[in-house]
Amino acid sequence: MTALEKLQKKQNDGFHICVGLDSDLSKIPPHLKKSSAPLLAFNKTIIEATRDIAAAYKINLAFYEKEGKKGIGALEETLNLLPADTLIIGDAKKGDIGNTSRMYASSLFEHFKFDASTLHPYMGYDSVQPFLDYKDKLNFMLVLTSNPGNKDFEKIKTEDGKFLYQVILNKVNDWNDSKNCGIVFGATNPGELKENLNSFKDLPVLLPGVGSQGGNLEEVTEIFESAGNTNYLVNVSRALIYADSSENFGRKTSEKLTEMNKTVKRIISNYK
Amino acid sequence: MTALEKLQKKQNDGFHICVGLDSDLSKIPPHLKKSSAPLLAFNKTIIEATRDIAAAYKINLAFYEKEGKKGIGALEETLNLLPADTLIIGDAKKGDIGNTSRMYASSLFEHFKFDASTLHPYMGYDSVQPFLDYKDKLNFMLVLTSNPGNKDFEKIKTEDGKFLYQVILNKVNDWNDSKNCGIVFGATNPGELKENLNSFKDLPVLLPGVGSQGGNLEEVTEIFESAGNTNYLVNVSRALIYADSSENFGRKTSEKLTEMNKTVKRIISNYK
Repeated sequence: MTALEKLQKKQNDGFHICVGLDSDLSKIPPHLKKSSAPLLAFNKTIIEATRDIAAAYKINLAFYEKEGKKGIGALEETLNLLPADTLIIGDAKKGDIGNTSRMYASSLFEHFKFDASTLHPYMGYDSVQPFLDYKDKLNFMLVLTSNPGNKDFEKIKTEDGKFLYQVILNKVNDWNDSKNCGIVFGATNPGELKENLNSFKDLPVLLPGVGSQGGNLEEVTEIFESAGNTNYLVNVSRALIYADSSENFGRKTSEKLTEMNKTVKRIISNYK
Repeated sequence: MTALEKLQKKQNDGFHICVGLDSDLSKIPPHLKKSSAPLLAFNKTIIEATRDIAAAYKINLAFYEKEGKKGIGALEETLNLLPADTLIIGDAKKGDIGNTSRMYASSLFEHFKFDASTLHPYMGYDSVQPFLDYKDKLNFMLVLTSNPGNKDFEKIKTEDGKFLYQVILNKVNDWNDSKNCGIVFGATNPGELKENLNSFKDLPVLLPGVGSQGGNLEEVTEIFESAGNTNYLVNVSRALIYADSSENFGRKTSEKLTEMNKTVKRIISNYK
């Protein structure tokens, strides 16, 4: 199965929530800290609790790199636990010259065997091309991010009156010949989402910002479904994996994800 | 010593060449491949051959991440071999939302103990701020890169007639209150370098692109020195570390770096 096929299968079954494994040693339930591999123990419980109800998983590499060799070991073992039929996104926001980009693509796709990447497109086509050479993978390019600093450059107006992020969005459509591009588009501003929806075309949209960053799941789902676009993936990290800090944290995460899935399915059913 | 002080000390002694440790298993001398840790053995020889004549070292993390846990181990051991009085740049081109950016800053500066980072500024101030919180470090922001794709977005004209990269350059000057910002500016186009030299102000400039990418060391040095700006660092990776593939590769790299240093010092002496 290609990355796109894995994603579409889940979307067809009404799953649109991506579980963000931003697993942070300082935030995991206290009882796990006695474990010899606390991050891995935490991930194992979260994965078991969500494997049949997650549309995808997004692993934020920062949280593993931070622990050096040990963290990378936890990452490698975590990847072995994830369900093979589910899209696994390696969120490392890479972007470098071709020669180096080839190394990063090889690292993410061959060493770690992720299904998908997130990329900084700022350096232009040849910086992302080594990733696009992997036809069966998906590459989510940063278009509009969910942080306050998006105003500094992403929302600069270019000569022809478009925002920079819109110029990038159009360019990513041009790069999508092999149907292995997607975009990252912040879920924190519904107006911007509506305004750009027609330009998403057949690009899968990864939406960060729901939960801890203030984006609203119902609103975002409504915008997509009402427009007949089902090619979206709402990432939820902290609000989901740290839903509870007791020994039952897995069950609480599962309940919370089930509840979110119900919200999404209710909206979907309104447009069927 | 702060990162800036380390850099300035070398620059005052006439050293401006940064050795790029893009150590690639497929390119190192064949005899090293028998070693139990070939990357580390390669780095050890290069570091010993250059430690007194390098202005700085730049480690490209892609080349280590690619090998997973083992590669990160080689990186950790390489860092222990590097001279403590020399600026060590962790080239990972990070850029993420604040929460994640804090993790990456902690990874680069606290776990690996790099003196400096390279950053994607595209996501705006709050994405780089966790790095700027480390006052004693240096953060080289991508302004104009040396790859062909720089035309796709970096050279887009904004509403007010500036190139996007120039808007970013000005913004980085605004962010430089703690004197811990620098910029990456491609060395492949002398015209662009001259045109923007006045806007560099007191930002250290890291120049990739000399050597394998076609930039010319004499030309770049001349541009800076003739303008009385000595705050530059020319990165050379492949052309230096793969100068030779015999058992004497360390000596050849040392000779090549010595020759480059002479070229730079000759030009410096013309403007003293």
